[in-house]
Amino acid sequence: MEKTRHSLSHILALTVKEIFPQAFLGMGPAIENGFYYDFLMPKSFSEKELKKIENKMKETIKKNLSFKKRFISKKEAQKIFKEEPFKLDLLKDIKGKVSLYEVNGFVDLCSGPHVKNTKEINLDSFQLSRVAGAYWKGDEKNQMLTRIYGIAFESKEKLNKYLDLVEESKKRDHRKIGRELDLFCFSEIVGPGLPMYTPKGTALIEQLKKKVEAICRSYGFEKVSAPSLTKIDLFEISGHAKKFSEELFHVNSVSGHSFALKPVQCPHHTQIYASKIRSYKELPIRYMESDKQYRAEKAGEVGGLNRVYAITVEDGHSFCQVSQVKDEIKRMISIIQEFYTSLGLWKNHKVYLSFRDYQHPEKYIGEEKDWKKCESILKQINKEMNLKAEIQEGEAALYGPKIDFMFKDALGKEVQIPTVQIDFATAKRFNLFYVSKTGKKIAPVMVHRAILGSYERFLALLIEHFAGDFPFWLSPIQVVIIPINEKCLEYAKEIKEKLKDIRVEINSEEESVSKKIKKAELQKIPYMVVIGEKELKSKKISLRKRKEKKIKETSLNNFLKICQDYQPKQKL
Amino acid sequence: MEKTRHSLSHILALTVKEIFPQAFLGMGPAIENGFYYDFLMPKSFSEKELKKIENKMKETIKKNLSFKKRFISKKEAQKIFKEEPFKLDLLKDIKGKVSLYEVNGFVDLCSGPHVKNTKEINLDSFQLSRVAGAYWKGDEKNQMLTRIYGIAFESKEKLNKYLDLVEESKKRDHRKIGRELDLFCFSEIVGPGLPMYTPKGTALIEQLKKKVEAICRSYGFEKVSAPSLTKIDLFEISGHAKKFSEELFHVNSVSGHSFALKPVQCPHHTQIYASKIRSYKELPIRYMESDKQYRAEKAGEVGGLNRVYAITVEDGHSFCQVSQVKDEIKRMISIIQEFYTSLGLWKNHKVYLSFRDYQHPEKYIGEEKDWKKCESILKQINKEMNLKAEIQEGEAALYGPKIDFMFKDALGKEVQIPTVQIDFATAKRFNLFYVSKTGKKIAPVMVHRAILGSYERFLALLIEHFAGDFPFWLSPIQVVIIPINEKCLEYAKEIKEKLKDIRVEINSEEESVSKKIKKAELQKIPYMVVIGEKELKSKKISLRKRKEKKIKETSLNNFLKICQDYQPKQKL
Repeated sequence: MEKTRHSLSHILALTVKEIFPQAFLGMGPAIENGFYYDFLMPKSFSEKELKKIENKMKETIKKNLSFKKRFISKKEAQKIFKEEPFKLDLLKDIKGKVSLYEVNGFVDLCSGPHVKNTKEINLDSFQLSRVAGAYWKGDEKNQMLTRIYGIAFESKEKLNKYLDLVEESKKRDHRKIGRELDLFCFSEIVGPGLPMYTPKGTALIEQLKKKVEAICRSYGFEKVSAPSLTKIDLFEISGHAKKFSEELFHVNSVSGHSFALKPVQCPHHTQIYASKIRSYKELPIRYMESDKQYRAEKAGEVGGLNRVYAITVEDGHSFCQVSQVKDEIKRMISIIQEFYTSLGLWKNHKVYLSFRDYQHPEKYIGEEKDWKKCESILKQINKEMNLKAEIQEGEAALYGPKIDFMFKDALGKEVQIPTVQIDFATAKRFNLFYVSKTGKKIAPVMVHRAILGSYERFLALLIEHFAGDFPFWLSPIQVVIIPINEKCLEYAKEIKEKLKDIRVEINSEEESVSKKIKKAELQKIPYMVVIGEKELKSKKISLRKRKEKKIKETSLNNFLKICQDYQPKQKL
Repeated sequence: MEKTRHSLSHILALTVKEIFPQAFLGMGPAIENGFYYDFLMPKSFSEKELKKIENKMKETIKKNLSFKKRFISKKEAQKIFKEEPFKLDLLKDIKGKVSLYEVNGFVDLCSGPHVKNTKEINLDSFQLSRVAGAYWKGDEKNQMLTRIYGIAFESKEKLNKYLDLVEESKKRDHRKIGRELDLFCFSEIVGPGLPMYTPKGTALIEQLKKKVEAICRSYGFEKVSAPSLTKIDLFEISGHAKKFSEELFHVNSVSGHSFALKPVQCPHHTQIYASKIRSYKELPIRYMESDKQYRAEKAGEVGGLNRVYAITVEDGHSFCQVSQVKDEIKRMISIIQEFYTSLGLWKNHKVYLSFRDYQHPEKYIGEEKDWKKCESILKQINKEMNLKAEIQEGEAALYGPKIDFMFKDALGKEVQIPTVQIDFATAKRFNLFYVSKTGKKIAPVMVHRAILGSYERFLALLIEHFAGDFPFWLSPIQVVIIPINEKCLEYAKEIKEKLKDIRVEINSEEESVSKKIKKAELQKIPYMVVIGEKELKSKKISLRKRKEKKIKETSLNNFLKICQDYQPKQKL
């Protein structure tokens, strides 16, 4: 498809030049699902203009035009493009002969490939989708151009399937649902990339935190708490000052303080380990922390919860002996399995063993024998735990091999979240040690693990996965009590009191029951408890489950049992 | 006592000049409990030299010398002090006549007062206590001088009482106990002023957090979560950019980001409030958050947990109507009462109503009628809740009056922690509003409240208050199980399993039971469960309470009941 998509971007450019001769050309590649082309225009394109361009493109394609490639000298090229400043800018970086493509008299700088003739392009399986701003060469310091996006597939069926998926993903967009369910918000005064969580969003995150921490605690992890600030020295030793040089936030005051905000948590954890002399008997020592990490993301790229300046990472490290590494990794995988099972996401995943690029051993640090040992341990675990992992060569971390777990998001795209990583290097960099049985100082191995990654990205993923319709235990509001009139309010409060471990709201507005039910549906509240005078007398409740039309009468005790059944087992 | 203390500082200075003629004089006032004098010396004073100075001071005092005051011109003074650069520096700021005191031929710049004759000084009730570094005029940019501290009281008894208190406070020093109980640590690589909490310290903080949040939740507070970063705009509107200009941390990146780290939480909370249009029906809206606030404290002043760069503040705000203010404040006072009662600290406190300085209304913002109304509300509450508060004029906040609660620390010093503060101004600055019953936009009132202040300072206070001997519910480790030999280990694990809501450690080291008990005592663990073969057979346990010699045999169920009795009611 790449040839077709790339050819369509040329047809798009020539068509825009026909209709808007004043447009300057940027560039236009094939991309995933389609193509784009950038133009410098005095104003953006309207919907109507977009349609006009698309129709004209189709007419051009119908002419069965050929794509012709040729090579010319840079000087000739500069002549051809003398009125296109962006093309001239591109030419600056080209050495030797310049490759051109021509179609219908429209010449573009391009090394191809393209379809031979436009008759290869299926007229029904592409469309122009939208207009967006884009900096020339993606650099904020450059001019802002207008980008036209198109989508293109092999067939009309595939195009429609994709459009359906996009439609569905729009409905599930975490920014949209986050607003509708009042989970988080942004403020112009605070700035973009800095989400604030409302009570409901905070409740959701607290539930996730409780869940993941409880599981980790049952596997021997202990919570620690480290500051966000540090002297830069810490990251110079760990290597992160260099690795994150661009993304590091520096902190200063008028009176001369100078700190860095942590972009990762492991270096701080090494210092808690180092605060005492450790004996081999104490190992493994397992620390976990859910704290904010700070990264100076590009201003143009922040948005929603997926790309923010501070991510709250659920991070954990085990400091152990080499002989304990295998058991530690197995524990971590069990944690991952337990957590994702509780969300119904286990089995909807792939596992990769990310090993070295054996052709380029120079890309890694550490000793050959350690690498071999680790890779063999991972292979054994794969077998023993029946993970059905694929080996991916060249995907290891700088310090050691890792296991990555991939899940599918609402659009079917693979996202990597949990990871377990073996690290022989960091402990040595910080001179960490434990005293062995024979009194020797030995560097511990660090095993890093992420379970849900960052709460921000994970929340975005969960919102889109469940389309806001969270399982009972995660729902910000689990039960809404709907009293039919003021007389029933006291009984409603009594019920709320009895449901004290459940997150309950009473809707005591002066509006009809059906309106209240509709509101609860929109807020995706799992259970509605309707209280009328009949229920008041019988001391029963009328229960309505979300998305179900039927209202059942039941006892409060029975409902309590239903809630409790949902709570601890986290069924979906 | 001030005259005596001040006179002693002169005697100290003249004695140092006698013994060390090369010393340059700084200055030396009377202070709480004693006095000091600063000197520029090529090296510090040893213990021995300090004793020598003290003895020589006593000899001088015995001579029954008079203090004589006189006034001279600035020019004359400059002549007298021509070899004392710091005195010349002080003279620069003096206008008009210069006041001098002379004793035993030693002349000092000083406006007094002093004792008439050294015979008024009791020889047994003072001593030199320690040497410390101090910047000239307290400014880091100036030279570092050597300060000699002395303590002085009316009588030997009072001096001894003070020395005992100091001794006790050394034992209770939170830095010492924090290290012994392994609650928190510092790292040279991370830097001073940046404490890291170990698993035990983190457990302690989590218990406090749980407790205070549960109480606040029961009074209608909901947790929110805001980022630490913001555009400076937020604090320019709130007024904190100006107020904290020196203490503000600025955050930058190489690619040009520019943020501030929050020194307070209220401005962020206003933005969560502002994320939706609020109706009068929704009010009061009560937000709480335990998050880090950042202040660029002076590098020389950070230390322990009392002065750090990031404080984790348990903060809360209620947005309400004027008619709701009284009830809101009462709720907050109830929260404070409930929380401090759970720690056994209630009744050991004083309450102040901090009102305006009526002589200087220009120091405050807001309207006269609002101030009057608030002060009258606070007076009513004082009566209705029987707070027995004292009115303190001139102690109000810029924006409104407040109620402050003072507790006594281990040394008997009053510390102010909880506060409830009425604020008519902030909501208006951010254009916050709610829609009234008649459809009008009205600015809500904000009521700020702090319950335990910052976790850092509160933890320091609690450690010193309890001398590390925390109540059961707060203890980082609540129970240690001591198996007598390896055969009993399985049963120990079984018991641990059954005590699952309790923080339990098993001491399975190969050491004697008495050594294990001693260790548990040092770690201040409330309960020790000793498991021998007898207990293994009878399926009972031998229970030893901390500080009690007797070991009692009891059933596991009975012990579980004891623990549960402690857990929810938080008896001390």
